[in-house]
Amino acid sequence: MTGFVSFVSAGPGDPELLTLKAVDRLRRADAVLYDDLAAGDILGHVRDGADLVGVGKRAGRASPRQDHINRLLVDYAAGGARVVRLKSGDAGIFGRLEEEIEALRAADIAFEIVPGVPSPCAAAAGAGLPLTRRQAARRLQFITGHDATGRLPDDLNLAALADAQAVTAVFMGRRTFPELAARLIAAGLPAETPALLVEDASLPGAIRRRDTLAGLAAHLAGAAKGAAPAMILFGPLGESGDA
Amino acid sequence: MTGFVSFVSAGPGDPELLTLKAVDRLRRADAVLYDDLAAGDILGHVRDGADLVGVGKRAGRASPRQDHINRLLVDYAAGGARVVRLKSGDAGIFGRLEEEIEALRAADIAFEIVPGVPSPCAAAAGAGLPLTRRQAARRLQFITGHDATGRLPDDLNLAALADAQAVTAVFMGRRTFPELAARLIAAGLPAETPALLVEDASLPGAIRRRDTLAGLAAHLAGAAKGAAPAMILFGPLGESGDA
Repeated sequence: MTGFVSFVSAGPGDPELLTLKAVDRLRRADAVLYDDLAAGDILGHVRDGADLVGVGKRAGRASPRQDHINRLLVDYAAGGARVVRLKSGDAGIFGRLEEEIEALRAADIAFEIVPGVPSPCAAAAGAGLPLTRRQAARRLQFITGHDATGRLPDDLNLAALADAQAVTAVFMGRRTFPELAARLIAAGLPAETPALLVEDASLPGAIRRRDTLAGLAAHLAGAAKGAAPAMILFGPLGESGDA
Repeated sequence: MTGFVSFVSAGPGDPELLTLKAVDRLRRADAVLYDDLAAGDILGHVRDGADLVGVGKRAGRASPRQDHINRLLVDYAAGGARVVRLKSGDAGIFGRLEEEIEALRAADIAFEIVPGVPSPCAAAAGAGLPLTRRQAARRLQFITGHDATGRLPDDLNLAALADAQAVTAVFMGRRTFPELAARLIAAGLPAETPALLVEDASLPGAIRRRDTLAGLAAHLAGAAKGAAPAMILFGPLGESGDA
């Protein structure tokens, strides 16, 4: 009998931001493949005796190759297991979900996707800010700070990003933000555009830095490389004030 | 003693897509102000004796004015209540959260925002699709199909929206989609760009229509006005195939 794979969104990190459906899938799993980012208390929902397999990427450590993860997923499911593939934030956003789905399709293994709370939603919520504003911020966009080569993508849509009426969330953008900000300012986005850096969004130790586009870029250019996951928001963020 | 307001994200509709934190806040609430879209089983978590107040907008019915909702929130909290303001999807995305926060700030009432699952995440998940793709879809954006006047906004950023490398989610866009699609095609986005309409995303009766940008526009131009909430996704959506 063939198994089944649930791609489960772990949310931004706070175990209370798991959905009821995610908890259900974790409880019923025979095997859970998780990223390091989604560990800790979240795995407490897994029953004794289930296999827990860490396959995540962590700064400074070699990470399993994608084809190895794909093979693990297929092997567990082909053996009849209920498999949970736990992914940070929402599984469908910047989580390389497509590669894993393709591997399952090739092996004729059924799957579902359990959506979850994306990290920018938690970063904004923790700062007491809406992500959209009726008049000022009518478009919301998510990008990553680097492409597959690790550099700022060189085909950025600057007309989309240097838009004073849009709020942009940059995933994994800490290292390349100085370069991104310089390109956006050159493209006409005011240097004084509000910006917010949030490390460990939704966790008790979350750190927020409210700044401007130029100010945050200067800060990050001089900062030590951080290890905590960082989310950067910029655009017409509105009045700050922690909730 | 002053109360407290929790802006709680109800998620896309499936009660299993509530977060644990949302359930906790509903259980502890003295009063819950909810939109019609977020009703049903979700309110089953509210304790007996709590006030349930429907303040939502529903097609074909007059809806309470925003200042009335603001006043209710302030009055309940000023009276010492733990108030939950339940909002569909993620509370910070296209939910007019800012207006309600401003009313609380003016009255010096503390609040928190509990983030949740945005509807586009559920719409894509139900279709077995990731919202981003490593090579093809590296930017994800959310817009609404109409502005405060009910029309397609006339200051659309066409360079951002007519981008073959971005996936766009259109909230409340059913009625204006034919006009939007025509403008995007005129701006260079191929008429054959994949598009997906999802009604009642995440609910048992969800209806999905996979089409092209031009095809979906033609369909909606001729369709009866639908009452169910509709989410439209377009862009390089990848291989369909329901999960």
